[in-house]
Amino acid sequence: MRSTEPDPYQRGCPSRRLLDRIGDRWTVLVILTLREGPRRFSEIRRRIDGVSQKMLTQTLRALERDGLVTRTVHPEVPPRVVYELTALGRSLIGPLDGLLGWATANLPEVEDAQEGYDRELLRTPR
Amino acid sequence: MRSTEPDPYQRGCPSRRLLDRIGDRWTVLVILTLREGPRRFSEIRRRIDGVSQKMLTQTLRALERDGLVTRTVHPEVPPRVVYELTALGRSLIGPLDGLLGWATANLPEVEDAQEGYDRELLRTPR
Repeated sequence: MRSTEPDPYQRGCPSRRLLDRIGDRWTVLVILTLREGPRRFSEIRRRIDGVSQKMLTQTLRALERDGLVTRTVHPEVPPRVVYELTALGRSLIGPLDGLLGWATANLPEVEDAQEGYDRELLRTPR
Repeated sequence: MRSTEPDPYQRGCPSRRLLDRIGDRWTVLVILTLREGPRRFSEIRRRIDGVSQKMLTQTLRALERDGLVTRTVHPEVPPRVVYELTALGRSLIGPLDGLLGWATANLPEVEDAQEGYDRELLRTPR
């Protein structure tokens, strides 16, 4: 591997910070909400229960800066602002869908494991 | 969808917290390190540049509790402690590999987008 290739195992590599951003819960939920088509801020916020205005604003701005989402202001009164995935953003749907799909499919098994772990810890504390 | 099915779009659903954990940078790097086979703590730490002892300990404990990793103490002097993926943990390799693969493959395009965004922002501040 050339030393200039992205390597998230190296602490200084920007790919590690990119990995942080795309693995973030709000990024996952926003990108997968926008897979259905362009949406207004209020529509996205309604879809993602419990996201604060501030957090959604920050997330959308980071996605816009990373080239994953476009923000279009339609000159109406009041102006209509619409968010939409770019081609690059759409290429993330597959990986993020894999992540979210794994979490929903395997939650029961994970919860069983947690119960077993906690029970065992009560019997024989480390 | 039944109301008891995991739904990370809902704020109280444990699948949202699970999504946080599996999307975490250290989880991704640890699981993908262990895909090569069982590893000792010190070996994992060497592979993942910049991870602190405390953070790696916390990450491995969470993975163990979630049933993704086993921790085996071999009774030698000094004891040899080995971490290994479970079948459930191995089922996460695909999704996490997709995530990390996307980050490394698309970093150049993301960085181009960032430069364009920052340049535009300088010209016409919002």
